[in-house]
Amino acid sequence: MAMFAVSRRLSISGGPAIGALRYATTTVVKPLPTSFREERDTFGPILVPYDKLWGAQTQRSLQNFDIGGDRERMPEPIIRAFGILKRCAAKVNMEYGLDPMIAKAIMQAAQEVAEGKLNDHFPLVVWQTGSGTQSNMNANEVIANRAAEILGHKRGEKVVHPNDHVNRSQSSNDTFPTVMHIAAAMEINSRLIPNLKHLHTSLNSKSVEFKDIVKIGRTHTQDATPLTLGQEFSGYSTQVKYGIDRVFCTLPRIYQLAQGGTAVGTGLNTKKGFDVKIAAAVAEETNLPFVTAENKFEALAAHDAFVETSGALNTIAASLMKIANDIRLLGSGPRCGLGELILPENEPGSSIMPGKVNPTQCEALTMVCAQVMGNHVAITIGGSNGHFELNVYKPLIASGLLHSVRLLGDASASFEKNCVRGIQANRERIAKLLHESLMLVTSLNPKIGYDNAAAVAKKAHKEGSTLKEAALKLGVLTSEEFDTLVVPEKMIGPSD
Amino acid sequence: MAMFAVSRRLSISGGPAIGALRYATTTVVKPLPTSFREERDTFGPILVPYDKLWGAQTQRSLQNFDIGGDRERMPEPIIRAFGILKRCAAKVNMEYGLDPMIAKAIMQAAQEVAEGKLNDHFPLVVWQTGSGTQSNMNANEVIANRAAEILGHKRGEKVVHPNDHVNRSQSSNDTFPTVMHIAAAMEINSRLIPNLKHLHTSLNSKSVEFKDIVKIGRTHTQDATPLTLGQEFSGYSTQVKYGIDRVFCTLPRIYQLAQGGTAVGTGLNTKKGFDVKIAAAVAEETNLPFVTAENKFEALAAHDAFVETSGALNTIAASLMKIANDIRLLGSGPRCGLGELILPENEPGSSIMPGKVNPTQCEALTMVCAQVMGNHVAITIGGSNGHFELNVYKPLIASGLLHSVRLLGDASASFEKNCVRGIQANRERIAKLLHESLMLVTSLNPKIGYDNAAAVAKKAHKEGSTLKEAALKLGVLTSEEFDTLVVPEKMIGPSD
Amino acid sequence: MAMFAVSRRLSISGGPAIGALRYATTTVVKPLPTSFREERDTFGPILVPYDKLWGAQTQRSLQNFDIGGDRERMPEPIIRAFGILKRCAAKVNMEYGLDPMIAKAIMQAAQEVAEGKLNDHFPLVVWQTGSGTQSNMNANEVIANRAAEILGHKRGEKVVHPNDHVNRSQSSNDTFPTVMHIAAAMEINSRLIPNLKHLHTSLNSKSVEFKDIVKIGRTHTQDATPLTLGQEFSGYSTQVKYGIDRVFCTLPRIYQLAQGGTAVGTGLNTKKGFDVKIAAAVAEETNLPFVTAENKFEALAAHDAFVETSGALNTIAASLMKIANDIRLLGSGPRCGLGELILPENEPGSSIMPGKVNPTQCEALTMVCAQVMGNHVAITIGGSNGHFELNVYKPLIASGLLHSVRLLGDASASFEKNCVRGIQANRERIAKLLHESLMLVTSLNPKIGYDNAAAVAKKAHKEGSTLKEAALKLGVLTSEEFDTLVVPEKMIGPSD
Amino acid sequence: MAMFAVSRRLSISGGPAIGALRYATTTVVKPLPTSFREERDTFGPILVPYDKLWGAQTQRSLQNFDIGGDRERMPEPIIRAFGILKRCAAKVNMEYGLDPMIAKAIMQAAQEVAEGKLNDHFPLVVWQTGSGTQSNMNANEVIANRAAEILGHKRGEKVVHPNDHVNRSQSSNDTFPTVMHIAAAMEINSRLIPNLKHLHTSLNSKSVEFKDIVKIGRTHTQDATPLTLGQEFSGYSTQVKYGIDRVFCTLPRIYQLAQGGTAVGTGLNTKKGFDVKIAAAVAEETNLPFVTAENKFEALAAHDAFVETSGALNTIAASLMKIANDIRLLGSGPRCGLGELILPENEPGSSIMPGKVNPTQCEALTMVCAQVMGNHVAITIGGSNGHFELNVYKPLIASGLLHSVRLLGDASASFEKNCVRGIQANRERIAKLLHESLMLVTSLNPKIGYDNAAAVAKKAHKEGSTLKEAALKLGVLTSEEFDTLVVPEKMIGPSD
Repeated sequence: MAMFAVSRRLSISGGPAIGALRYATTTVVKPLPTSFREERDTFGPILVPYDKLWGAQTQRSLQNFDIGGDRERMPEPIIRAFGILKRCAAKVNMEYGLDPMIAKAIMQAAQEVAEGKLNDHFPLVVWQTGSGTQSNMNANEVIANRAAEILGHKRGEKVVHPNDHVNRSQSSNDTFPTVMHIAAAMEINSRLIPNLKHLHTSLNSKSVEFKDIVKIGRTHTQDATPLTLGQEFSGYSTQVKYGIDRVFCTLPRIYQLAQGGTAVGTGLNTKKGFDVKIAAAVAEETNLPFVTAENKFEALAAHDAFVETSGALNTIAASLMKIANDIRLLGSGPRCGLGELILPENEPGSSIMPGKVNPTQCEALTMVCAQVMGNHVAITIGGSNGHFELNVYKPLIASGLLHSVRLLGDASASFEKNCVRGIQANRERIAKLLHESLMLVTSLNPKIGYDNAAAVAKKAHKEGSTLKEAALKLGVLTSEEFDTLVVPEKMIGPSD
Repeated sequence: MAMFAVSRRLSISGGPAIGALRYATTTVVKPLPTSFREERDTFGPILVPYDKLWGAQTQRSLQNFDIGGDRERMPEPIIRAFGILKRCAAKVNMEYGLDPMIAKAIMQAAQEVAEGKLNDHFPLVVWQTGSGTQSNMNANEVIANRAAEILGHKRGEKVVHPNDHVNRSQSSNDTFPTVMHIAAAMEINSRLIPNLKHLHTSLNSKSVEFKDIVKIGRTHTQDATPLTLGQEFSGYSTQVKYGIDRVFCTLPRIYQLAQGGTAVGTGLNTKKGFDVKIAAAVAEETNLPFVTAENKFEALAAHDAFVETSGALNTIAASLMKIANDIRLLGSGPRCGLGELILPENEPGSSIMPGKVNPTQCEALTMVCAQVMGNHVAITIGGSNGHFELNVYKPLIASGLLHSVRLLGDASASFEKNCVRGIQANRERIAKLLHESLMLVTSLNPKIGYDNAAAVAKKAHKEGSTLKEAALKLGVLTSEEFDTLVVPEKMIGPSD
Repeated sequence: MAMFAVSRRLSISGGPAIGALRYATTTVVKPLPTSFREERDTFGPILVPYDKLWGAQTQRSLQNFDIGGDRERMPEPIIRAFGILKRCAAKVNMEYGLDPMIAKAIMQAAQEVAEGKLNDHFPLVVWQTGSGTQSNMNANEVIANRAAEILGHKRGEKVVHPNDHVNRSQSSNDTFPTVMHIAAAMEINSRLIPNLKHLHTSLNSKSVEFKDIVKIGRTHTQDATPLTLGQEFSGYSTQVKYGIDRVFCTLPRIYQLAQGGTAVGTGLNTKKGFDVKIAAAVAEETNLPFVTAENKFEALAAHDAFVETSGALNTIAASLMKIANDIRLLGSGPRCGLGELILPENEPGSSIMPGKVNPTQCEALTMVCAQVMGNHVAITIGGSNGHFELNVYKPLIASGLLHSVRLLGDASASFEKNCVRGIQANRERIAKLLHESLMLVTSLNPKIGYDNAAAVAKKAHKEGSTLKEAALKLGVLTSEEFDTLVVPEKMIGPSD
Repeated sequence: MAMFAVSRRLSISGGPAIGALRYATTTVVKPLPTSFREERDTFGPILVPYDKLWGAQTQRSLQNFDIGGDRERMPEPIIRAFGILKRCAAKVNMEYGLDPMIAKAIMQAAQEVAEGKLNDHFPLVVWQTGSGTQSNMNANEVIANRAAEILGHKRGEKVVHPNDHVNRSQSSNDTFPTVMHIAAAMEINSRLIPNLKHLHTSLNSKSVEFKDIVKIGRTHTQDATPLTLGQEFSGYSTQVKYGIDRVFCTLPRIYQLAQGGTAVGTGLNTKKGFDVKIAAAVAEETNLPFVTAENKFEALAAHDAFVETSGALNTIAASLMKIANDIRLLGSGPRCGLGELILPENEPGSSIMPGKVNPTQCEALTMVCAQVMGNHVAITIGGSNGHFELNVYKPLIASGLLHSVRLLGDASASFEKNCVRGIQANRERIAKLLHESLMLVTSLNPKIGYDNAAAVAKKAHKEGSTLKEAALKLGVLTSEEFDTLVVPEKMIGPSD
């Protein structure tokens, strides 16, 4: 009996409350495809939209997992990584006896997936089976049908078989972790690291540009001893530099590929050497140093490597939140804040307060940082809840990490370009604050001792006077001594 | 000088690693619009795609916040809530003197936004200014241009002014929290609660269906005293019932609207009574019991109500994770697991192991739960980091909560329909396990004492014998006494 | 064969690194007790320190769970709640036939536990069995031995039996969740709520005290329209008020007691009505509205009530972090910060900068908030990971919640007493900043429109002039008009 | 005017609710010290218990931060690290001119602190000033008073001055981060790493011991293709091995010491070279490769190194949770679970079910893992919330990390010793399950194709028959072919 199928249907969530609501906020009904073809799997026949390359198992997932809508589709880097992997698998399988005609058609079809040309044929959401099997089958089905077309056959005929040919020597249980690692490594190397490097360079340039601007330091949000604005920015640039190091430290474990472990890690139904060859093929294809995982049981049953890398991203988020917070506070004002930095004005800031300009790049960045921290918890929970031979939180873990990488990468670029690059020092304001500060008293410690110095600062604070006036009144040193000792420019480093 | 603008551009992330990568996983270049019109704001003129209703400030945000791509657009419930709010604002403003012709055009345009008809004109992402000002301006601009069209004017002429007319008596700082609350309340009432109710009903039905099936209990994952399968499911259904209660407990604070607080909570540039009237208008429009917030300063500067509601969702996630885990473990097998439940078979489970069927709905649901827990942390961090009169993590907080509501609602529906509803008890297996268990010994405690009962259980365990055999060998009671006392069916409740 | 036992031994953690370390940071060796007595359980005999009331099972746990040291002992409120529960259980068991002489001795001994007099006899750490069985047995053993002493017998004779008498009609699986709920309810009512109420009152007093002080508002950390300092504090006090409401909302589910469910929720080995009677007894004993749990299966298998209540605490933490951050930033200075608030000076702030005073109470409070957020995640993870009839993260969940309650309660009290109560407004500074601000321009909107008002603000900003000068130069209104419109004192509410 | 002081007072938390509660669960009143001496700081005189070495600033903190009670004291490894640091500082300061007599007395006193002999003189809790200044002053005061005694003077005389001598060339802002790093590095090297190594070795031994036991694999909690029990354990041991690697990867940034940065990172009031010399001295003293931090501004203002290391611990927690969960599920039973592993029986498992033995070590370990994940969130929040030149969440971050290190280290040791080491395989049960499984069908794929193999498995499942029976009935291969192909022992690796 043929099952009648539709593309993702409108979710009709009932209950009394809804009837009463004037604007049900459910998804808008999409026009249904008008034409279908029949595809089959071990569950029997099912109708699939005629213009789509996917097959029966993809269609079942589409119907069984109506969760979250299109925004929740498996991330594009995963789809592309499937293209790369399936291309490599066909190539290696050819060495092990796969019919070259079929293998080459698969390679060509997979290449189209790798280039993002067939994205529209990957409709499945993240919230599916926890092994990612359905997305693996989506890739197998699309590539099989496309390869069949390339060979002059029709979709659905299984001239190229999704399991026996495209998925040959593979299991979802090793392909999905493999594409997770490929996608993560590529996104980290092509998006995150370069953007962090630009941000580091930009912060570093500011550190150099501001190296002679002596300003008041602040600890506990209170006035403290001086430093240069350049020194302050050197702290930020060091944080970003270490952030890059942190991610790099985790990559050796990301470069390990599970492929070759098949269903439970043993490599059943592969040939000896398949694992090493396919890792080499992926390495060559991507120009990244992938190797076969040292222990396939670990590689399927756990995703500690992703939890670890997410931990590095979480650290970067903590760093960037600190930097963005400082910059917006130092740039607060224009008249009633700290006002030491002048931030670029990119757009009107208020729909009611005319002329207001806000540190919006800092805001976008700190929101991104909060999301990365949240994703990290989700990934950790998913990573810790595997059972036996397979962790079944794979799509969650993969999409969470790729989300964090994308957001951190993009937001770093935006922040660099639209904020850091254009920061200017408000030298006048900086100088004014510096010379009003009481914490310059610290340089008197070695001369008059901590207790006397404290008395000077307290007196000046109470009387609203300058430190010098207070020091002279207390008679702890002479005017000349004071002028010699209290020189902000000499307070920005250790003494000889 | 006119600024030349493009729609969202391809992000070119440089660096050496990229050149080497064969498949850069950056966004595919989208075709640029071929035709533009000029729009202006206080920053000057800017080009906007001709076919779009948005104006200058939306365009600037689009260019300045190239973060995350289309998946990261402001969630649709927020856009629709803007439609509702702007419609209500025009209506109330008319009472306070807004030109009725303009007001009515605004109301009509806003209605289209509320119905989701203008979704394509809301291109901005979540990762923008933390006040949501740019999305508020997006709404103002789209509605102003659409209203102008309705009145027979051209886009960009500002016959209907985005700020002076559409945003009249409002600030982003009160509109954005208002739409956050409207969107959350609507999604909770139309999606989450009904789906949780269905799930509760379904679990409850199973509890009744299974009420006479006595089975072995398990504590610490180890065999324990018996209970009925219906009792076990009653625990699940109680968890879901309390989950619904938990969300309801938080709604009184979600129903408080910030509108009327304008820029900092004082209500500057509104009229007295505006806040009460607009809350009433929104309540009427949505059929939900919205009221004006008791303290507008709190309503702008903090989003504790969202942190609280997210806490309720987090609790529901904890409940559902427990339920889904139990169901998949009780349904584990078919031959080498616990095998007490038979779960519906919805699709092939493995690309390599033929005939395998997996508890995929449990997997999707538990992944959703992990994400909800992660979103909760992100929302908490955003909620705790407000400064002074305004929390500027609003888009993050709003999108996080709506994401969690959507995922929990959809996944509950999917889990109910594709799993719970079809669960069957494997009565044969359940009976077999029950009668093999050693923990039936517990019913001997009142008769022979804990220490003797322990000796019986230990002896049976060591010798692989039945409890009865062990008890008789130890001579602690007679065969008749044993048969009278050890009756699983009598062990499922307190004694008289 | 008797097992030779010692009290908690020094953990000798080996490995090459240690030999090389000069200062091994392991626990200091404690003097071993010199005298022991033999106790027995179903595992056989074991030596116990002579001067301790505990028995064999406590001793085994002490030896098998050498994790974390004394800091990690089961929290005192749990121990005391055991005292209350065991006292009530003996009382109710007497009604069901327990020998009154034994029952009364148990009640007397349990009373001593409830009053904290036997704390030294509860050495077990949180990191033990996940059901808390060992702490329940610790209570049973201590009370049995103490009751035996009261009756004139020796420790270890089991005249009063830990299981058959003290634990009668109970299982660890229902007693431990019961003491979790008793302890949480008592700590919340006696420590958290009163201290939050004091804090609320204090913030409210400040709100009244500062009601006439008009100051600059700040949004996005940037200057915004004015409000009164009293309004600003009213936001804080509202946050705390809602926090109290939030906790109260969760209490109905905390007041449900699992007692009577015994091992798996069925109530095996109790009598009908036991559950209701014991809840009533606990309610009477504690003066809190405890009731028996509606569904005992849920009450053992899940701790959603704790996840929920922890969510309320998490929200309070988010609120308090916001308040403390604002207060320290508004009090930043003394010369180079915002300086609007003068915070109490409680102690020297720096070991190097003489005279420095820091917002240390804000710092302690925000650290507490971060810990509460972290505990919330731990509790959520524990709460979501139960299996079948029993959640075995009970000690973690209990200690996490009690930790959060204690920290929030104590820190709120400290913050109120040592900071909020003494906050003064720096009226001079507030007035100075207010009159320099450009955002007063907002009150020109209704008169000259948003675009003109923006031009005025931008001109003043660029030229460093006053708004009035800029407005007159631009010719958008007269001097008189300006003076009539721009009056900060009229900008703190909606107009008539 | 002298201030009258007491040791930590009973917190009296008022309010109506309390009066009604019969058992207020506040801290028991401690006996007050009967004898005091006067100490002074820049705030004036204050009374200090006569028998304590601490001074005025410690006493103020004790009174001002009555939060959490004794369990919340600054962790011992921090106190000991202060001893090490202050000893090294005195030594280096001597080179820079500190009076050798004073320096040597300081060194001797500091040595006593390093050895834990003066622990009772460090009463301050974690919840104090966020810079740890008060604990630094506690160390300075105790060492100064003790050094004075060594030199024959009285406590409180300041012959040895806490600031001018003990804290010379230092600030709390550099000493506290320095002791954080020293304490973390020592605890990681002396407690965590050795215990993880033991656990790794033990799991590895089991992997070898079980290398020939073929068992059913499980994916999605469902039966899958076979593997050996040794292979399964090799996954666990690999996880632990990588965990050790992960921590090591983070140590280079932990070995960087902030000392020499003084108040804001500039090194004001130190001498050139002080930073390098003191790092060298600490390295020599501890035998760990400490170096001076490359950028002192980063080292004071951020604790990214701790966030990063906590991320590594979080990953280890995820690993251990997976391992412990697997072990308890594989050991579930004894009669109604999976029953493949026999876990050591360490203590009675139930207070009601006689003879029950539970996987309690798994439970303690998984609770620890949840706490480590929670601490990680707390540390992340603290780490991200620094302002300007100083992160003021230092005590939270330090105590959180040390808590996690201690718990993971101790729990790993306990788990290894009391569980892993004694695990036995239940060979009979394993063999029985293996041969009942349907997933052996997978080895037919290469011969008869995926679709035919699926048909065989489905038929056997439906009919409750063996695979062979089903295969023969379907006529897809002969009896001999089946016997040749379906050999579990040949399914545990790739084919030649």
